[in-house]
Amino acid sequence: MNQEVAIIGIGMTKFGELWNRSFRQLFVEAGSEALEDAGIKSEEIGALFGGNMSAGQFIGQEHLASLIMDHSNMTPQPATRVEAACASGGLALRTAYMSIKSGMHDVVIAAGAEKMTDVLPSKTTGALATAADQEWEAGFGATFPGLYAMIARRHMHEFGTTEEQLASVSVKNHYNGSKNPKAQFQNEITIDDVLSSPMVADPLKLFDCSPVSDGAAALVLASAEKAKELCENPVWIAGSGQASDTLALHSRKSLTTLNATVEAGRQAYKQAGITSKDIGAAEVHDCFTIAELCAIEDLGFCEKGDGGKFTEQGETGLKGSIPVNTSGGLKTKGHPVGATGIAQAIEASLQLRGEAGDRQIDDLEYVLTHNVGGSGGTAAVHIFSR
Amino acid sequence: MNQEVAIIGIGMTKFGELWNRSFRQLFVEAGSEALEDAGIKSEEIGALFGGNMSAGQFIGQEHLASLIMDHSNMTPQPATRVEAACASGGLALRTAYMSIKSGMHDVVIAAGAEKMTDVLPSKTTGALATAADQEWEAGFGATFPGLYAMIARRHMHEFGTTEEQLASVSVKNHYNGSKNPKAQFQNEITIDDVLSSPMVADPLKLFDCSPVSDGAAALVLASAEKAKELCENPVWIAGSGQASDTLALHSRKSLTTLNATVEAGRQAYKQAGITSKDIGAAEVHDCFTIAELCAIEDLGFCEKGDGGKFTEQGETGLKGSIPVNTSGGLKTKGHPVGATGIAQAIEASLQLRGEAGDRQIDDLEYVLTHNVGGSGGTAAVHIFSR
Repeated sequence: MNQEVAIIGIGMTKFGELWNRSFRQLFVEAGSEALEDAGIKSEEIGALFGGNMSAGQFIGQEHLASLIMDHSNMTPQPATRVEAACASGGLALRTAYMSIKSGMHDVVIAAGAEKMTDVLPSKTTGALATAADQEWEAGFGATFPGLYAMIARRHMHEFGTTEEQLASVSVKNHYNGSKNPKAQFQNEITIDDVLSSPMVADPLKLFDCSPVSDGAAALVLASAEKAKELCENPVWIAGSGQASDTLALHSRKSLTTLNATVEAGRQAYKQAGITSKDIGAAEVHDCFTIAELCAIEDLGFCEKGDGGKFTEQGETGLKGSIPVNTSGGLKTKGHPVGATGIAQAIEASLQLRGEAGDRQIDDLEYVLTHNVGGSGGTAAVHIFSR
Repeated sequence: MNQEVAIIGIGMTKFGELWNRSFRQLFVEAGSEALEDAGIKSEEIGALFGGNMSAGQFIGQEHLASLIMDHSNMTPQPATRVEAACASGGLALRTAYMSIKSGMHDVVIAAGAEKMTDVLPSKTTGALATAADQEWEAGFGATFPGLYAMIARRHMHEFGTTEEQLASVSVKNHYNGSKNPKAQFQNEITIDDVLSSPMVADPLKLFDCSPVSDGAAALVLASAEKAKELCENPVWIAGSGQASDTLALHSRKSLTTLNATVEAGRQAYKQAGITSKDIGAAEVHDCFTIAELCAIEDLGFCEKGDGGKFTEQGETGLKGSIPVNTSGGLKTKGHPVGATGIAQAIEASLQLRGEAGDRQIDDLEYVLTHNVGGSGGTAAVHIFSR
């Protein structure tokens, strides 16, 4: 088993519409919590890798990683922002992991933050659409609900997936989120609630879509030597995979298979020396309900096309064969895009540390996280173990 | 001497106002040239790390690294965008370097690109100002010419630096750029030309400022084993340093010392096992003439405060004791912000390979590059050797 790099501290803000707090307040809160959890001081941090998609558009601020160091009193340590749309957090984690494997640092922070509610909702959708292909998709008015609606429509056409099955993803994730005090929404909903919610992009309704959120999350990573010295309950990174695909949907061989997910998963399973059958729980990128179905199929938890049935039968529920999005997922926990990949790793850590409260899954050995940029132009998959 | 990671291929577009070419055309041109120079195929590339400051604001496109893979037919290899304002390229280089040292990849591309002339000039200055502190600087109207003008004014006050000495930086860099076929400007100028050019932010005049540019640059990096197998003239990365500082100028102990430069330089010298006296030529971040004076002081080429005199006396000229910005620097070669750090490494490579044409410096052992984000919130320093 790989025991080279471990998570030794975790911290995150509550996710939600946090109008009373600024971007810099959010990341300082998450980072401080992570340092406290690790029981170390900021001077011991060798570097920071921060995921953020689009603060340039959302709050008029680029150069974010150094801003974090500045407002955390951590200068002159180096800080690097990493961006891959909604997979920015997953890539920040992978880059931080790489920095320790390189021997250049012993202890680093991998963080993610996004402040999305400081602009008008009309501008938010446009800002998010810059993760799609500007010349072939966004420039002609395509938005992410529209792009994922096309994937959903095709999935229904190819495999007979129903709107009720899509809705069952949202119902499950709301149930899980109701047990997560840091989730943006903490209310249970029914299939009827989803089906009767306003149409956004046919067949996706409002409750098929993850919300617009503010939030920040941070991890302290350490080398094996440092982790054993500093930490009693390290969570090991057993595998890390990352892959790219065409930005534009029209260039893909298949609309319903995200090749970047398949490839990133393959890399992570290989590195960890396991298969999808060894995964005890997973956080997957459910920016829309259809995305969770594609993910559980592409990661091998069920056959291609069976995701809807599998979910409807409860296999991905807290008591199912492979619990998915125990945190509530993007749908319910919230989706501050740059923070999402880090927040997924925090849920994996809580589960592996046995600290997930009412949503705790027993006897876990491996937990997987899956973070997607855009409609699948980037995917990062990580596997964690005790 | 460190011989772990080498540059085995280089490519860059001409820099300038390239209205007839798009962002994606620019990076494909630079990347193809680098692959051809390395004599390898894109299938052999394990990953790409791309520096870009603000395509979200300039061309409405985030998620750039995967876009590059898409339009270079390099999917599903992983691609990561790195951002630290004008130091994005330098950090892409360092991250790519780290990825090879980590053992996760053998051959990768480090690239940088920026397309700045597709928006109105009035918007360009605002977009660039997002690299400053939005809440304390940019939000109140501070722009980069204004911030660097304050640094220049303080340098003049503390050390008696003159406007003629500032101008001498620009005159030297135009002379060097006149020998660089890829430079945006290829005309020589005089001290009088600079002094009589329009005032931008007192004491900085138009010819004290680097231009707004389009351009892309790419490097192929390889592990020692791969480099020896694939390449007859590898350029080794002998040292890599990176540091952060406060984003806002008002929080610094000194206006005229960029602490991030000092710290990044210290790390790079230490790793290379040399001192500033061993450097044979350097590319430093002359976004404004005053920035070059601060840089040559902070990197130890002359004493603090002596940069003006040192430059005026020709010490940093092609025939001086330490030639600086042989490429023409940002001032003359152009400054497509995300590409700059990579373009600096290309000049270092050309010089060390003996391919720098009319601007070739003889008998080089070590060449240094220095890339700054914002007014010094980030600095990356790299040292290269044969």
